[in-house]
Amino acid sequence: MTKKIRVGIIGYGNLGRGAEAAIAQQPDMELVAVFSRRGAVDTIDPEVASVHIDEVDKFQDKIDVMLLCGGSATDLPEQTPQYAEIFHTVDSFDTHAKIPEYFASVDKVSQASKKVNIISVGWDPGLFSVNRVMAEAVLAEGNTYTFWGKGLSQGHSDAVRRVEGVKAGVQYTLPSEEAMDKVRQGENPELATNEKHKRECYIVLEDGADAEEVTTTIKTMPNYFDEYDTTVHIISEEELARDHQKMPHGGFVIHSGKTGAGHNQIVEYSLKLESNPEFTSSVLVSYARAAHRLAQEGQFGAKTVYDIGPGYIHPASPADLRKKYL
Amino acid sequence: MTKKIRVGIIGYGNLGRGAEAAIAQQPDMELVAVFSRRGAVDTIDPEVASVHIDEVDKFQDKIDVMLLCGGSATDLPEQTPQYAEIFHTVDSFDTHAKIPEYFASVDKVSQASKKVNIISVGWDPGLFSVNRVMAEAVLAEGNTYTFWGKGLSQGHSDAVRRVEGVKAGVQYTLPSEEAMDKVRQGENPELATNEKHKRECYIVLEDGADAEEVTTTIKTMPNYFDEYDTTVHIISEEELARDHQKMPHGGFVIHSGKTGAGHNQIVEYSLKLESNPEFTSSVLVSYARAAHRLAQEGQFGAKTVYDIGPGYIHPASPADLRKKYL
Repeated sequence: MTKKIRVGIIGYGNLGRGAEAAIAQQPDMELVAVFSRRGAVDTIDPEVASVHIDEVDKFQDKIDVMLLCGGSATDLPEQTPQYAEIFHTVDSFDTHAKIPEYFASVDKVSQASKKVNIISVGWDPGLFSVNRVMAEAVLAEGNTYTFWGKGLSQGHSDAVRRVEGVKAGVQYTLPSEEAMDKVRQGENPELATNEKHKRECYIVLEDGADAEEVTTTIKTMPNYFDEYDTTVHIISEEELARDHQKMPHGGFVIHSGKTGAGHNQIVEYSLKLESNPEFTSSVLVSYARAAHRLAQEGQFGAKTVYDIGPGYIHPASPADLRKKYL
Repeated sequence: MTKKIRVGIIGYGNLGRGAEAAIAQQPDMELVAVFSRRGAVDTIDPEVASVHIDEVDKFQDKIDVMLLCGGSATDLPEQTPQYAEIFHTVDSFDTHAKIPEYFASVDKVSQASKKVNIISVGWDPGLFSVNRVMAEAVLAEGNTYTFWGKGLSQGHSDAVRRVEGVKAGVQYTLPSEEAMDKVRQGENPELATNEKHKRECYIVLEDGADAEEVTTTIKTMPNYFDEYDTTVHIISEEELARDHQKMPHGGFVIHSGKTGAGHNQIVEYSLKLESNPEFTSSVLVSYARAAHRLAQEGQFGAKTVYDIGPGYIHPASPADLRKKYL
């Protein structure tokens, strides 16, 4: 029996919690401890060690790979370069526009510390990124389309809840079926973001609020809703509590290409997720395995999903993968 | 301007022809020559050099990567170990059960010749294999289902044409929509191959043949049709020529998993191909790029899609991929 991969988690919000659950599902991993600025946290499994972040240095020889489960806005840009000095890491940095700069700042540390630090893992960036690149590599003449949803959008839900007369509510982003069908037919349409997506709001009104006025305010809100096909549903507090407490998400990457004498070739990848944070952290956890294996091969540096062979994230050996999965 | 990757093709059937077309679509590749046992062949682009296979040794310094486009039954098991001595290669060996033995025989040569030899590239084995492994790595608790179709099946078409009274015909394999829907709903059904697929035959009758008798003979044919939901359509020669000359194929890899407290998570990958051989050879061509880059890094040995980072098959640099696609 091979030794299990010893994993740690820094940050214990939805993502850290999902990572704890995902590690428990993996046959070859064990969770050593959860680290938080809050000190002890309420872990799913009460047996899991919960430690203040200031103590993390003491775990240098006890943890093979550290999962960084903080936010992209302020946590990760500071934490990843810091912890890359002493740990192999995997993180979910998802501010697309800042990835090159983030990669550089992590890689500078990794090159000196000789650690493997895999950045921007999850589903977008992450699995969607893999599919965009592979489909385009194979079908050079073609277009790639990314559609998101059905998904709960945190930013848009916040915007809805700020409207006067709204007591509570959520917003879902939905892919436009019409737009997706055009792409699947090989029509290669030009589509703006607002043509690819629709928005659906479920709100509870404050006592005495005017439904029509609130609806109009939401639908005409600049940047958030005015350019989209937006539907507003007025529901009761009971319905909100009963039907809208999950964090679903997902989406589609569709590549439409042509080969030879104009043959249409459609490649489609999609996710339908009942829990967005649990899925994202499951991806992080699988890449912890890759970080560990790359480190054992003597590799180091900042890495992305593009650098890593798919077999590295699966528990089976290369020989078993060839035999059972290829 | 970087030098283009110089590619050669051995074997000029549907796959070799598709490879010629695919290389022409890639910005960073050039086709040096096509090699065949038949000597000169009728290439799509008449400017392409067409050379007898016996001359291939002379091209050792003129070709960076050789695509082996022969068949899996007899060509590749002989050719790949032979040409792996002098070329980096990519092939589409697709006899799933024999892959371990084939890998070993190629790797033995590659280790000595220090060449990169990527085996079993295409869509199944190939892109489907990648998706089976990645989805299962992420969602450890779950089941993976592969459905094929709608696709023209050569073996089943041959079987139909051997039936007395059948003048000509084709057979398509179709995925069962009912079975796919069960999987997509997270039901994790147990499904035998004949529950996952249906078979559809389009046949032209010989003069005087009995439609009902022929239909019954086909539907009850052991191994090929008796255990499947099979439909037989009688059509005219004109209809066969007009509607059934393409080689469509495709299929679905659906992984249904659960995370945390039982949340369903569905990952789906699908291909809808108007030309199966053109798509397969497009995949081969993209992996020629990976073979070339791995060789430049000093790597060697037999490889599969599991060993190769997705970025290696795309023409853009790692920095550009991070900036534009991640």
